[in-house]
Amino acid sequence: MEKAWVAELFERVRKRNPLVHNITNFVAMDISANLLLAAGASPAMVHAEEEAADFARISDALVINIGTLSPSWVAAMVAAATAARDAGKPWVLDPVGVGATAFRTATVHRLVALRPTIIRGNASEILSIAGAEGGGKGVDSRANSDSARAVAQRLAADLGTVIAVTGAVDYVTDGQRTFAIAGGHPLMTSVTAVGCAATALVGAFVAVESDAVRAAAAALGTLAVAGEIAAEGAAGPGSFRVRLLDTLATLDTATLTARLRLTV
Amino acid sequence: MEKAWVAELFERVRKRNPLVHNITNFVAMDISANLLLAAGASPAMVHAEEEAADFARISDALVINIGTLSPSWVAAMVAAATAARDAGKPWVLDPVGVGATAFRTATVHRLVALRPTIIRGNASEILSIAGAEGGGKGVDSRANSDSARAVAQRLAADLGTVIAVTGAVDYVTDGQRTFAIAGGHPLMTSVTAVGCAATALVGAFVAVESDAVRAAAAALGTLAVAGEIAAEGAAGPGSFRVRLLDTLATLDTATLTARLRLTV
Amino acid sequence: MEKAWVAELFERVRKRNPLVHNITNFVAMDISANLLLAAGASPAMVHAEEEAADFARISDALVINIGTLSPSWVAAMVAAATAARDAGKPWVLDPVGVGATAFRTATVHRLVALRPTIIRGNASEILSIAGAEGGGKGVDSRANSDSARAVAQRLAADLGTVIAVTGAVDYVTDGQRTFAIAGGHPLMTSVTAVGCAATALVGAFVAVESDAVRAAAAALGTLAVAGEIAAEGAAGPGSFRVRLLDTLATLDTATLTARLRLTV
Repeated sequence: MEKAWVAELFERVRKRNPLVHNITNFVAMDISANLLLAAGASPAMVHAEEEAADFARISDALVINIGTLSPSWVAAMVAAATAARDAGKPWVLDPVGVGATAFRTATVHRLVALRPTIIRGNASEILSIAGAEGGGKGVDSRANSDSARAVAQRLAADLGTVIAVTGAVDYVTDGQRTFAIAGGHPLMTSVTAVGCAATALVGAFVAVESDAVRAAAAALGTLAVAGEIAAEGAAGPGSFRVRLLDTLATLDTATLTARLRLTV
Repeated sequence: MEKAWVAELFERVRKRNPLVHNITNFVAMDISANLLLAAGASPAMVHAEEEAADFARISDALVINIGTLSPSWVAAMVAAATAARDAGKPWVLDPVGVGATAFRTATVHRLVALRPTIIRGNASEILSIAGAEGGGKGVDSRANSDSARAVAQRLAADLGTVIAVTGAVDYVTDGQRTFAIAGGHPLMTSVTAVGCAATALVGAFVAVESDAVRAAAAALGTLAVAGEIAAEGAAGPGSFRVRLLDTLATLDTATLTARLRLTV
Repeated sequence: MEKAWVAELFERVRKRNPLVHNITNFVAMDISANLLLAAGASPAMVHAEEEAADFARISDALVINIGTLSPSWVAAMVAAATAARDAGKPWVLDPVGVGATAFRTATVHRLVALRPTIIRGNASEILSIAGAEGGGKGVDSRANSDSARAVAQRLAADLGTVIAVTGAVDYVTDGQRTFAIAGGHPLMTSVTAVGCAATALVGAFVAVESDAVRAAAAALGTLAVAGEIAAEGAAGPGSFRVRLLDTLATLDTATLTARLRLTV
């Protein structure tokens, strides 16, 4: 079956247990680490400039998320991204709230210049990076992912990177191929840092699959199915979060393939 | 019905989805962000001196919590509070553990001088700010909120700010009007940072209501009802936390008004 | 009954409500604070160099965990450990990921020189401190705790400290006495920072019991029983975490003693 490659990549994460180095924001650390563990990956959070490059070199992938920035963290992000790139390790950027402040925007431009393998953001963030209209409000998106689709395709082609725009429908593109992932559930936006954790999951998948557009699409497709199933029995955002971890940890490949709504 | 204004304010938070800028402690970030989302607000955690003032200006309210302090964070707190004040945005201070160390006390005095709209603390913290007897033990209160009531009223009048003292009964006062909120549940003190998250919720309410004493009372009243309902089916602090978020996200106004135990 | 002393120590934690000062990593803060509260202790997270020593002196025990390091935190760790030692307060070290980077290893050597009362780590970490073979992969152990047992005994004797190596079986030793604790559940490794939270719990027990080998063994034995019970009804790592806190908070001493699998 055509969609079975998604489940195959998920199984590969579970088997290989990749070490995913995260330099992520304080709010996202707990759920990112727990989502990576639930997916079968091995998370580590290491942010000091003194060791970030060393750690990036021994990891299978690097995830950089600018949610809660400060200058010493930016230095570590630059050092780690440079080390990852030089070592041929994939790295993923989550440009949280880019456009909201000058500091944030400048930091993202520095990081984009270091050629992330994948950029995962909401529509406002992707539009902001592309210099297009559609300003963000804080860290939540004001634009929808459809409006960002064409912009993402151009941006991916220009930068030579994979762009993943998440929203009601997620789009993953390298400028030529574009995957659309439907599904998921509105409760995913009622729990803090689920988007950040999605980026971490993309890191786990790209650690085991060199085709970055397929890796990102598989990660987001897997999370969308887990989110949909988790929401079915949830009484609200508290229980949804618990169920999301339970569901991802126990999701079987047949269910994943059957429920996946991924189109090219 | 006289108490219906509390539910009306809660509905206003849900409708307006205010952007609440938090500079809060590491332990409180997750539950604060999730409680704000469950209440319908839009949380952001931004603490770098490079962007804190910028972000305070675009937010609807600012919440500063000194739980896990360090000098660079204090600089950002001062910058953000100054920016909020100058922009006419309300801001709320949570003086966690004031009195426990000299650093903590000095920081609170600097922040109080910047005229917070509301100060939310436990009895020990409020007594400490007022220079009264009743020293804290770490971050948990040794005094009860009744003992702090009169002190809070004087302090509110002296500082021209609203003081919210939380405990078995919460008191919210501007020195002239004093609201008492009963209810809640002891399990609220068995989950870390519920008090900090209460302060964040006060920020969401004061973002949509300029009468700060009513905003703080409504936030604490709403949380007390949610806590009481959540505790009913909880098997301990783990499930209580989950249920608190579920309950707040689904709390209807009729239930809130019916169960609210707020007196003037 | 011979094993009843474990439950007696747990009751002592509940009665005395010790103030446990944590300088711990960002990922572990939430679960550590909540586990300490569930056990009846009073957690505080204080990491600024400006106040860490002051706070260590007023606390009943100090826990230092190097999971997410940075230079200013190392300075605070050294200041706090020195203050604790000078004040005769017990302190516990969790050397997360020691051996993974030079910065991490150097930091652990500085801290070990300050004579922690107890070191709690996984097998890879204990082997790394002892200079033995068995390198870690990120922060998860590659060695099993059996292989580290003899090394731990020698290390404990050499350093004059208690070593607790956790794994499928936990070993706690001062070089002469060695306790083995079986039980627990594999789900404990599927939730981030449960090991770190175990170290925090060791801090709570050593705050109320001066025989550090018994304190560490009792803490790990209590957690193993709670973990085992919590796993029984868990649907995955999300619900396991919730149930672990519920179980610990409500664990009665008869059940603890009956289910404890501790041998000397």
